[in-house]
Amino acid sequence: MQAEIVTIGDEILIGQIVDTNSAYIATALNNIGIDVYQITSVQDERQHILESLHQASGRSQIVILTGGLGPTKDDITKQTFCDYFEDTLIENQAVVDKIHDLFETHVKRKPLPANLTQALVPTKATVLDNSFGTAPGMWMERDGTVFISLPGVPYEMKALMEEQVLPRLQKKYKRPFIYHRTLLTYGAGESQIAHRIEAWEEALPSYIKLAYLPSLGRVRLRLSAKGDNKQQVIDTVEAQINNLLPMLEDIFVGFEEEGSLAQTIGGILTDRGQSLSLAESCTGGRIALTFVSNAGSSLFFKGGVTPYATHMKVSLLGVSKEIIETHSVVSEAVAEQMALKVKKLFNTDYAISTTGNAGPSLGDSDAEVGIVYIGIASPAGVLVERHQFGKNREKVIQRTANKALELLRKEILKN
Amino acid sequence: MQAEIVTIGDEILIGQIVDTNSAYIATALNNIGIDVYQITSVQDERQHILESLHQASGRSQIVILTGGLGPTKDDITKQTFCDYFEDTLIENQAVVDKIHDLFETHVKRKPLPANLTQALVPTKATVLDNSFGTAPGMWMERDGTVFISLPGVPYEMKALMEEQVLPRLQKKYKRPFIYHRTLLTYGAGESQIAHRIEAWEEALPSYIKLAYLPSLGRVRLRLSAKGDNKQQVIDTVEAQINNLLPMLEDIFVGFEEEGSLAQTIGGILTDRGQSLSLAESCTGGRIALTFVSNAGSSLFFKGGVTPYATHMKVSLLGVSKEIIETHSVVSEAVAEQMALKVKKLFNTDYAISTTGNAGPSLGDSDAEVGIVYIGIASPAGVLVERHQFGKNREKVIQRTANKALELLRKEILKN
Repeated sequence: MQAEIVTIGDEILIGQIVDTNSAYIATALNNIGIDVYQITSVQDERQHILESLHQASGRSQIVILTGGLGPTKDDITKQTFCDYFEDTLIENQAVVDKIHDLFETHVKRKPLPANLTQALVPTKATVLDNSFGTAPGMWMERDGTVFISLPGVPYEMKALMEEQVLPRLQKKYKRPFIYHRTLLTYGAGESQIAHRIEAWEEALPSYIKLAYLPSLGRVRLRLSAKGDNKQQVIDTVEAQINNLLPMLEDIFVGFEEEGSLAQTIGGILTDRGQSLSLAESCTGGRIALTFVSNAGSSLFFKGGVTPYATHMKVSLLGVSKEIIETHSVVSEAVAEQMALKVKKLFNTDYAISTTGNAGPSLGDSDAEVGIVYIGIASPAGVLVERHQFGKNREKVIQRTANKALELLRKEILKN
Repeated sequence: MQAEIVTIGDEILIGQIVDTNSAYIATALNNIGIDVYQITSVQDERQHILESLHQASGRSQIVILTGGLGPTKDDITKQTFCDYFEDTLIENQAVVDKIHDLFETHVKRKPLPANLTQALVPTKATVLDNSFGTAPGMWMERDGTVFISLPGVPYEMKALMEEQVLPRLQKKYKRPFIYHRTLLTYGAGESQIAHRIEAWEEALPSYIKLAYLPSLGRVRLRLSAKGDNKQQVIDTVEAQINNLLPMLEDIFVGFEEEGSLAQTIGGILTDRGQSLSLAESCTGGRIALTFVSNAGSSLFFKGGVTPYATHMKVSLLGVSKEIIETHSVVSEAVAEQMALKVKKLFNTDYAISTTGNAGPSLGDSDAEVGIVYIGIASPAGVLVERHQFGKNREKVIQRTANKALELLRKEILKN
């Protein structure tokens, strides 16, 4: 059994927004054992939407649409969806009540006529309650295919998936168990890894799929398998991973399913009752945000400083002015001082510092674009690494953050 | 004339990665007057790739594929692409030389056999040089359709688009001019805006398309038109915008094409020779990153502090301990002090502070999850707003950042 996702909206086709809804829906379906065969993004155009529904239903038993359900004139999904089933729209009283209630409670004014058109639904549709908005979800069945239309606003779509769609799909279909395990590695390229594990990969049974997912200084290795016997699927994959891990010992940092590297680090520090602070210059708040995005971060993350202007490195952190003048602000000596000073200032066990030139032009130092120094202060001392991360500003910031976490983890495990 | 994008990779279909390549390619094509009709994401599966190529070429004259060109066994795009044209692979000497060169210069070791398989290309393909990687792009033509295969690694794909694909498409096709203008508004919902501009929207000529793009506290309004006469297209859209703007005066903050709100703010501050600092508690480094991501930010952004632990608000920023004890750390009084203190510490003209509970559980204060105080210190004084931004941690962080920029802009324009 398989599903397809159809996302509707010109904003996707002109590249104005990135389609994040599909990744969320695909993950959610995968978690309950439903494969996604294809994702199709189409314009807000009647004939194109009708065709994509027709084609998707010819391939898959579940078709999930998102987008185009808003109250404004550019939103045509509902009428088109209705026409596809040769149905007509009628007002649904439960949705009318919901809209009045939402407006009274949150918006503090009466709904506009446009808001009330949200209560129109095809007569044959099962209405799916939207906890966070006025556009209901809709569920239709025809010739053995289920069609589900959801709003494109991500948090409304997510609530509808969790509260309405997934429970109904779980009830309706018998599904296999799908198991993914993703190894996070830092510090080696994909072909190096492929070469290293070649014999193991050759011997991998065909029902286990292996994928290499490289990005900015790290490679993720994903093993996937499915079957009706959950325990057997898990055991088979885990047995393969047990054979694989010794070959990756120096570059393996954890499993993605157990959280990102930031979560892994947070877990270790919290367990040990240790703490972390940051002095981020060229990364702005990138590393802080990586930690703060996870719940529970206040248990180990004490905060940081972003002394973006050079003189703030002196006045706020206490980096020596002479060292900056002698070595330049982008230097090993400055990264070392930043890490040590912020560690002391926040009284933490570990600290990360970054100083570099993310480009596109030379800054307060003569360091070429892409040069970054990363400092890691630990109870044992301080180390600094120099890297050249290229000419793209965003990439320099992200690669610096990735490398800093990789180095921090290594230091933590040494202590 | 229109194009389609086919992205290849199981990682997209299981939701492990978000497909950002398509948005980039769609924007790039749009900029040179090529519409994208459909984006299709398919699995690393031979038959499925062949079908999607067949279908796309039946609808569109340009088909751009990304992904599946890596050196590892899960990458099957090249062989499938070659089979689609009933062609065979031969070694391309220029690519072989390039691979050796890349390895000598950057990797400091000899390429592995797997790396050298990257030099195999279909005999009929025009090879497109990849500046940043070993997998070349490929250009094939058949029955009036151009097929272009690019690697999925974003920066390799982008360089190939800019250096090879776009110049060739511009040379090959006569294209209309496509014009988009996107108004950024903060503080009103999409149906409120639609109601307000109803008469204007009704009278909009059919060749200008209007789209509402709502997200977390802001709505973007996009006007699109295309035609052969560039100046006429621009003039028509701009005339409509001139009629529209007076209706949106209180919520309009700028045009997306002229940069994000952070860029707009940066531009004003830089022009005025004024500066900004940040004291971000609940937003971690989210706001700092918004500024630091743009080149030239060091001209106005002096840096910030993330006093995540409560006691750091006292020791680092100098917020009064009594005020925290009396009012709680998530309070108007603390937000006010944080903004004033960081402004003084960094000696800037403006400062933003955030303190709140992003959830999921109660933190160092009794403030319910989602409550955030945002402070804006300016040469004229300080203001603080209280908001309830819901229960989702990431959403609370992003909405706080959006609202803070909105408030800062208003304060800057008052002074």
